[in-house]
Order: sequence, then C-alpha cells, then structure tokens
Amino acid sequence: MNQHRFDTAIHLEPVDGEPSLLRGHTTEDYWNMVGPFGGTTAATLLNAVMRHPERQGEPVALTVNYAGPLAAGEFEIEVHTARTNRTNQHWTLVQRQGEEVVTTATAVTAMRRDTWTDTEAERPEALSPDRYQRYPAIDGINWSGSYDIRFVEGEIPGPDAGTAPASRTTLWVRDEPPRPLDYCALASMTDCFYPRPFLRHGTYLPAGTVSLTIHFLADQHELEREADAHILGTAFPRRFGRSYYDQTSELWTADGQLLAAAHQTVYFKV
Amino acid sequence: MNQHRFDTAIHLEPVDGEPSLLRGHTTEDYWNMVGPFGGTTAATLLNAVMRHPERQGEPVALTVNYAGPLAAGEFEIEVHTARTNRTNQHWTLVQRQGEEVVTTATAVTAMRRDTWTDTEAERPEALSPDRYQRYPAIDGINWSGSYDIRFVEGEIPGPDAGTAPASRTTLWVRDEPPRPLDYCALASMTDCFYPRPFLRHGTYLPAGTVSLTIHFLADQHELEREADAHILGTAFPRRFGRSYYDQTSELWTADGQLLAAAHQTVYFKV
Repeated sequence: MNQHRFDTAIHLEPVDGEPSLLRGHTTEDYWNMVGPFGGTTAATLLNAVMRHPERQGEPVALTVNYAGPLAAGEFEIEVHTARTNRTNQHWTLVQRQGEEVVTTATAVTAMRRDTWTDTEAERPEALSPDRYQRYPAIDGINWSGSYDIRFVEGEIPGPDAGTAPASRTTLWVRDEPPRPLDYCALASMTDCFYPRPFLRHGTYLPAGTVSLTIHFLADQHELEREADAHILGTAFPRRFGRSYYDQTSELWTADGQLLAAAHQTVYFKV
Repeated sequence: MNQHRFDTAIHLEPVDGEPSLLRGHTTEDYWNMVGPFGGTTAATLLNAVMRHPERQGEPVALTVNYAGPLAAGEFEIEVHTARTNRTNQHWTLVQRQGEEVVTTATAVTAMRRDTWTDTEAERPEALSPDRYQRYPAIDGINWSGSYDIRFVEGEIPGPDAGTAPASRTTLWVRDEPPRPLDYCALASMTDCFYPRPFLRHGTYLPAGTVSLTIHFLADQHELEREADAHILGTAFPRRFGRSYYDQTSELWTADGQLLAAAHQTVYFKV
C-alpha cells in the first residue's frame, strides 16, 4: 500500500541520524498559492515532536509562527526539549531553508490522567456530512483537493456574493483520500478555513497567517475512535483592523466531542 | 515620583550591556501562591521585546509557555530576532534561573497600517465600573492587591457556593494604583481570571497555566486613549478533560473596542 499523501507531506528524516535535526520537503499535494498550506507546515513541526525518541505524552499546545515564505523543496527542522517535567515537556522548534528561518514554534506535550470532564462550548448545528456536497478542488490551490470539504455555512463567496455582515464558516472536513485521524492531521485541519475578509468583502484579498496556536483538547483514544470520519469545523474572527485580524476555529466530532481549538492572527490588506 | 510597582516587576537590565541578555527579579507585589503571577511573567517577557533596540512595530502575538516554577529572586531572559521582514519581526525568548529553563516564548511585532476595520465579537454587557464593588485583596495572593478588580458575573465562589453549570467570569480590571495602559499591562491583565474549575466546583483546586497566547488587536494610540480607565474582561472555557482545560479571555474598553484576545491551556486536578 502506498503512503498517504499527508504522511509524505509531513515526512521527516533525521540528518546524520540526529533525532533533533530533521529534513523534510514540501509536496505538490498540499501546495497553496505561494507556498505550502500553513496547516501542513504546522503538522510537520508537530511531527518533529511526535517522532522524537524522548517525547513523553500527548500534545496539549502548539504555536507556529510563520516568519517567512517556504519555497518548494527541502527544509530542515531543529527540535529541542527546553524542559522535561514529571507530567509535561516543553519543546522549541525552528524550521529553516538554508540559513533563513521560515518558521519558529513551541509545543507542550503532557501525560494526561483521568479527571472530571465537561464541555461548556456548544457544537455548531449541522446536518450529517452526506447532506452537503463536497466543494470542488480549486485550481491553483492544490491542498483544497487533498481535503473533502463540505460547507455548512459561510462558503467561499461566488463572483456576485457582495459583502457580508459577519464571517463565520462551518464545514465538514476529512482527508482526501480518507486517512485515520491523528494529532498531525488534526493540527492541519484547524487551518482549513479560507481567510475571513474574503467572506466579508465578497472577494479574494491578500491575507496570510503570521501566528497559529492550537490547543489539543482530546486524547489519543478519542482521535482513534474517529478513524476517518468527517470532522465538523467552525471558524470566526473577533476584530479586523490595522493590517491584522484574529480567528478562532474549533474542530468537533459528529457526536459532540470538541477535539481542538485554534487561534490565529492573520495579516490582511484591504 | 516613585516608579509604579508594575514597572518595577517587569524591569529588566542588560547583562554586560547586551540588549539580548537581560536580568530581572520577581517582586512581592505580584507574587502568587507558589511563584509570580503568570500575567506579570508574560508582561516581563514582552518587555524584553519592547525595550529591544532592534524592535520594529507593535506586538501582534505573544505565546508564553510556563515550563517550570519561578523562584523568588533573579532571572535572566535571552531574546533573539529569528527573522526581520519588511513589515513584521519574529522573536524567540527563553527565561532561565541558573541553568534551568523556566519559560519559553515567541512573539511577533508588526508595522500596522490603516485598513478596513470591523469588530464581529460582542462586548459583554456590564454597567459602569463604579456600579460594582472592588473585590478585596486575597490573603497570600499578593497580585490580587495590585489590581482593582470588580466582578460583573462569575465571581470567586464563596464557601457555600456549590457547583455551577458554567464558568464565564466578566470583570472590570485596572492596575492598582492606577497606571496608564500599555502592551505589557494589557498582556498581564489577560491572565487576571482565577481558574475556571474553582467556579464549576465551588472550591479551590490545584490549577496552573502551561501555555498562554495573546493576540493584540489594538494599536498604541488606542491603548494611550484608555489611560488608566478600567478595562472590561471576560473569560470562559471550552472543554475540561484529562488534566487540562482551555480558556479564552477578551479585554474590552468601556466604549466597545476589543483590545486583546488571549487563549490558554491550563493544568488542573479534580
């Protein structure tokens, strides 16, 4: 069986057998307009932690700062444990192409234990995924063909959309072709929402994430239980102004488990 | 005039005149139960960026990872520019006591320009701050005496509170004594909410932030306009489970400007 295209995209090899210095390369399947899809980059950085022989526990937090454009081709990731505690571990990462830093990142992994559990957030309303049509892959945005995305509300504005008073998007998403859910896939999916100003203005505009933080709220067993089911995502901004806006996204299971919440700040021009 | 206690708490001196290696020390005024108030630590790390001679622009994002306990006394902060672009700059920071890493952090600063602006989030409802009583400083939690906090909803549960079905807290906050608002003060205030499980369970429980991300949504002029007015803060969790929960907080001006949104993941035990 061939490796799934997502696993190819996030694949890393140790440089000279050193688990803290890894080499990877961008792929066509997750290419965005002028670089790789930011979700895949976040997943690749997380993968550098997940495959590290000293890792303890599961990811609870990941922050990725997109410092500069990533060109097609090879890159290196340096990953270090800043501190290992009894129940959690702190990681710092840098991704480079040649001498140039392209992303910086930090991560926290932790040994989770059984505790009291409750969800205060509410799953957005949606019918089952088969009640919506798969959105067609978009020419020149390859990664859109590597996901099965079905818009529930706030879909990409058409040519006559005009302006909108608000910009929440809710959608079903899964890997295309289907692939069992894991933390790397989940990390990538938190970034699968097109920029909010497109919806507000009814048109494409320059926009790019500068910093993305993901809080993982589910343990490994919950992810495994999802297998390759569609995940319900929702995203909304709080404030646009002076070149930046923020976006929060949530990823839910069909039966109402909140798997992750992510928060990004995005450069835009309008 | 004496320096404000907050400026003393976040004060940093270059080590051997080197602006990328700074020394500071914890203060009694912002002490929490077993270490300094996490908000002050975030503010101190941000201050290392703000005072750096190579800084360009205003902060748009800050992530602080609380890797280990900070003891009373001196600490050192190393701050580096990972990359400087035309309109933004990426920073990495490490705070140490002796050889031990106590926090890691990343920050993004940016030159903001005039753009289209809009706020989709809604300011929580509250009467003016003079309609609420200042919450008394709490014995053994010094930092609570360095803020004027007035609860609007979700105040610290009393001894007979019992459990609560949800845990949003809304409050007015300003520095005590009053101090003009700036990015460091704002960063600190994003963390002024007591842990959400206290409210749910009606009692004190072990809890501590492991990672805090702040997105700054206001520019310098908006902060200056606030001077030392009370800021309206609101905080809520999404999901508690398996030793961690997440919290989002927002800080608003009285007249409805959203200044910052912050997102943290918190260890808890119950």
